[in-house]
Amino acid sequence: MNINLQLDALRSAYRDGSITPRQLLLSLRDKAAALNPDYHLFIHLLSVEELEPYLAALDGRDPDSLPLYGVPFAIKDNIDLAGIATTAACPTFAYVPQSSATIVEQLLALGAIPLGKTNLDQFATGLNGSRSPYGACPNSVLPDYPSGGSSAGSSLAVALGVASFSLGTDTAGSGRVPAALNNLVGLKATKGLISTAGVVPACRTLDCVTTFTATAREASQLLALTAQLDPRDEYSRSNPLWNDGSAFGTPRPFRFGVPRTQDLEFFGCPEGPSLFAGAVDQLTALGGEAVTLDLSPFLEAARLLYEGPWVAERYSVAGELMEQNPDAVLPVIRAVLAKAPAVSGVKTFRAQYRLQALKALCDQALDGLDCVLTPTIGRPVTLAELAAEPVLRNSELGYYTNFMNLLDYAAVAVPAGFMSNGLPWGVTLFGRAFTDQYLLGVADALQRRQGLAASAPTTVARNDRARLVVCGAHLDGLALNWQLKRRGARLIETTFSSPDYQLYALAGGPPLRPGMVRVKEGGVAIAVEVWELPSSELGSFLTGIPAPLGLGKVQLADGRWESGFICEAYGLEGAVDISHLGGWRAYLKDRR
Amino acid sequence: MNINLQLDALRSAYRDGSITPRQLLLSLRDKAAALNPDYHLFIHLLSVEELEPYLAALDGRDPDSLPLYGVPFAIKDNIDLAGIATTAACPTFAYVPQSSATIVEQLLALGAIPLGKTNLDQFATGLNGSRSPYGACPNSVLPDYPSGGSSAGSSLAVALGVASFSLGTDTAGSGRVPAALNNLVGLKATKGLISTAGVVPACRTLDCVTTFTATAREASQLLALTAQLDPRDEYSRSNPLWNDGSAFGTPRPFRFGVPRTQDLEFFGCPEGPSLFAGAVDQLTALGGEAVTLDLSPFLEAARLLYEGPWVAERYSVAGELMEQNPDAVLPVIRAVLAKAPAVSGVKTFRAQYRLQALKALCDQALDGLDCVLTPTIGRPVTLAELAAEPVLRNSELGYYTNFMNLLDYAAVAVPAGFMSNGLPWGVTLFGRAFTDQYLLGVADALQRRQGLAASAPTTVARNDRARLVVCGAHLDGLALNWQLKRRGARLIETTFSSPDYQLYALAGGPPLRPGMVRVKEGGVAIAVEVWELPSSELGSFLTGIPAPLGLGKVQLADGRWESGFICEAYGLEGAVDISHLGGWRAYLKDRR
Repeated sequence: MNINLQLDALRSAYRDGSITPRQLLLSLRDKAAALNPDYHLFIHLLSVEELEPYLAALDGRDPDSLPLYGVPFAIKDNIDLAGIATTAACPTFAYVPQSSATIVEQLLALGAIPLGKTNLDQFATGLNGSRSPYGACPNSVLPDYPSGGSSAGSSLAVALGVASFSLGTDTAGSGRVPAALNNLVGLKATKGLISTAGVVPACRTLDCVTTFTATAREASQLLALTAQLDPRDEYSRSNPLWNDGSAFGTPRPFRFGVPRTQDLEFFGCPEGPSLFAGAVDQLTALGGEAVTLDLSPFLEAARLLYEGPWVAERYSVAGELMEQNPDAVLPVIRAVLAKAPAVSGVKTFRAQYRLQALKALCDQALDGLDCVLTPTIGRPVTLAELAAEPVLRNSELGYYTNFMNLLDYAAVAVPAGFMSNGLPWGVTLFGRAFTDQYLLGVADALQRRQGLAASAPTTVARNDRARLVVCGAHLDGLALNWQLKRRGARLIETTFSSPDYQLYALAGGPPLRPGMVRVKEGGVAIAVEVWELPSSELGSFLTGIPAPLGLGKVQLADGRWESGFICEAYGLEGAVDISHLGGWRAYLKDRR
Repeated sequence: MNINLQLDALRSAYRDGSITPRQLLLSLRDKAAALNPDYHLFIHLLSVEELEPYLAALDGRDPDSLPLYGVPFAIKDNIDLAGIATTAACPTFAYVPQSSATIVEQLLALGAIPLGKTNLDQFATGLNGSRSPYGACPNSVLPDYPSGGSSAGSSLAVALGVASFSLGTDTAGSGRVPAALNNLVGLKATKGLISTAGVVPACRTLDCVTTFTATAREASQLLALTAQLDPRDEYSRSNPLWNDGSAFGTPRPFRFGVPRTQDLEFFGCPEGPSLFAGAVDQLTALGGEAVTLDLSPFLEAARLLYEGPWVAERYSVAGELMEQNPDAVLPVIRAVLAKAPAVSGVKTFRAQYRLQALKALCDQALDGLDCVLTPTIGRPVTLAELAAEPVLRNSELGYYTNFMNLLDYAAVAVPAGFMSNGLPWGVTLFGRAFTDQYLLGVADALQRRQGLAASAPTTVARNDRARLVVCGAHLDGLALNWQLKRRGARLIETTFSSPDYQLYALAGGPPLRPGMVRVKEGGVAIAVEVWELPSSELGSFLTGIPAPLGLGKVQLADGRWESGFICEAYGLEGAVDISHLGGWRAYLKDRR
């Protein structure tokens, strides 16, 4: 049986009756069972009996009645599935939860079917996938390499074709490193967008639930379906509407940060620089402008994660167990956790101050950028290299990932080619919190360029910035321009409206104000500027605009429609038609 | 010499030549020197020589050339003034800073003149004003009572008429408790709005610089002048434009939270309940609707402050000194700090988790409220009572103040009458971060009602919520209403527009859309709804609105103008005039 498990393809297969959920899941179960002795991807594969209630719930239902009807997914074994043991890859720690994690409950309610609980680096502490008493997870393409971790089995479940998607977790890179190594999209959404209730904490202030999918489009669909405020999770945050997935689409011309050469670290991998340069070229070809970025404050934040007090958070869960029963915990994990009790409250606060200072610098560096591009890992390491130096090689894998959760950014790992030995290679797109769907739109464009995704979306990807067409006193340097600048706006474009407008000098003032009016006939092109400002600041700008002016949609010379100033018809009484001057600046000059 | 030191009055005096800055400051200096032996309000009063450079800088300048021309102010002695020792009320700790704190630099640049450094509870640890080797600060009205602290001398400087305003700090209530006890307005603005660079930290994650003024209007003016992002302070935050002070004014009908009876604690003070009930009545008379609020999660957060790990933050500054030289630190402060070294990182993170959970509950409780009213202190205590039980009585003073900074709320302490013995009594208005100017607007209205402030402002106070008039598919329950509800909007009012509008059913759809158009003649009143939503969400709502619709200003039946839907004239082609139906719901009903 050869079924394409991607969400849209699978729905078509269900619709046209090629297969039923029961047939598919039982077949995937057999496939997974056959793979497990070599790949150790499942700690627990659901039995036929355990699967049955989920399958029975779909019996007789229309495939279109549920957004994820019959979609097989795998669950990292630090996320609760009711009635099945959660081990966190530590048999002594195991418990059987009465209820599922919120994210699992959401997916089940949407019609998805859990195939099993996947292997991981114990207590999600690791980035390689070999730190488990349930066996090391080899890479899905080259078995001399690790799968990456800690969400090791979850990445393999999708890469090896036994699940449409899988759930991972990510504190330091656990949802991104395995994506890069297995040719997958790994989404570490903004902290708090996906509930962590029912997840074994690693560092509660940093933990995220992640998804592995073949495509960015599927990650977008899953995020849109599950990003909800959860009363069970105090770190849950509500999702601004620009990030709800309804504007998943092609990015407009955009600016992306690229680390300075001295900040790029490939740990001697000779192919890294050219693979990364290729990704930069691809983003440029998509309309991106590369902007050099000083990555050093990001990298300093990354070092805080393991050198700083956050290890004390990990102790909150595994610490008590380790004190009572040291042998229950793998030696390499024990070595990490052993540092925790010595961390003082004073040191904890000092590190938090330092992080705050670094975040201020990093936020400033991101201002004016739409996203940042980095490699996802500097150099892949073999299982043999890992065994020889388990801590050093593991920490190298986190070079580009460790800072993300500490700094509260959104990140998506995207496939970006292969090394000469055939091993997948990938990049990460990251940006400000709540720009997830925008980042996924860019990732999707990258995948389409690589022929890895079909059907271009028709909308324009939206992020946390809004564009505004101004034509009067808000033009750069004029009387009310400060209202834009005080809101952190920047000038994007000096252009003209489509030739469908008349410009009036309204009666009254000061300040003198224009009214720009769209007309069916007799219109001209008016000189305008396009500014970009944080979407959250646009509302207070709007409330400050007096009648008869307002904000609506204005068409530009190239046919695009953007938000911008409009004028109600009644306000033209006593106004002077100045359309022949072609713009407000010309009118002001003319008056002098 | 009897000069009114309030900002506007003082400016008038300078303008009309009644006095010069040099005359005023030297006179105030003499007055302060005379008061100091009894009140211990200044640790260091600037000498005539030290004052001179500040005075000389104003020589020959127009009083209108600087917003705070010649305004005398006092500085709590944990805030740096260049060239003058900062002691934090600990002589052994003292150092002479080369540069001033950012807030002091800002005020000096605006023309204000520093009179001296004021006394405080050592290391700002206390709420009563008696914990200083420079002497206890008695109350300005009844000297058997304390001034309140820790910003003790700063409150006295304004209350005793030697400064127009003063700077305090506030971690647990230090800027509010002394305001209540001395008939002053104490503003603890949203964390990060006023820079703390150059301030001796108490708890860096919680510390705020505060102001004491006679009136809320002055506090508003000072905040508007100084709330700026400071690159020297990583905890600095930019101020949203709705909170810039330009809409300081009278509150519209509003909803204010009032603690449940069982959460109100007066520690046996017989007058507290009726004084507080009186304040509730006054807010109600101002157009407020009292809503009962469960204060218990707020009070639990308060207990975290001294029982939890935040004491470890205090140790960061005074700890090293105390280890080397225990006698340098007052025994009562030593007792507080002694707990710090035992605080572990694990415990610190656990308390932060608990705080996060409580904040989620408290934020939820504030949703739908414009502000909350509480007493500022439960029961005033005499100096003798404090001496008998220094820790217990001090902690009682923080009952209503300790939670504020932990939960990231804005708060203003406002005078609200007197006890029968003549001691000032006060209330606190608090609300979400970045609603400072709104809270000050309510406080100002309260003061005007009490006859303590003049000249009503003409604008309407604005907070972090925006109002929106809808007339079509966004009406409650109709096709696009979810766009409002998903943004946390709530229906405020069902009403009509002013009788100046026509309503059209636009061509095209679905969805069917109306165009509401203001006309000079032939208009009618249209049925509309007013919704309220977070200002930060209004921008994304706007960008989703298609042409020819937009958002502008709509006039309501009672004459008010609010933001709402407008329609461009060109979009009326092919539209049907349905004004005679009086509203969109009637039109939809009519079509069926």
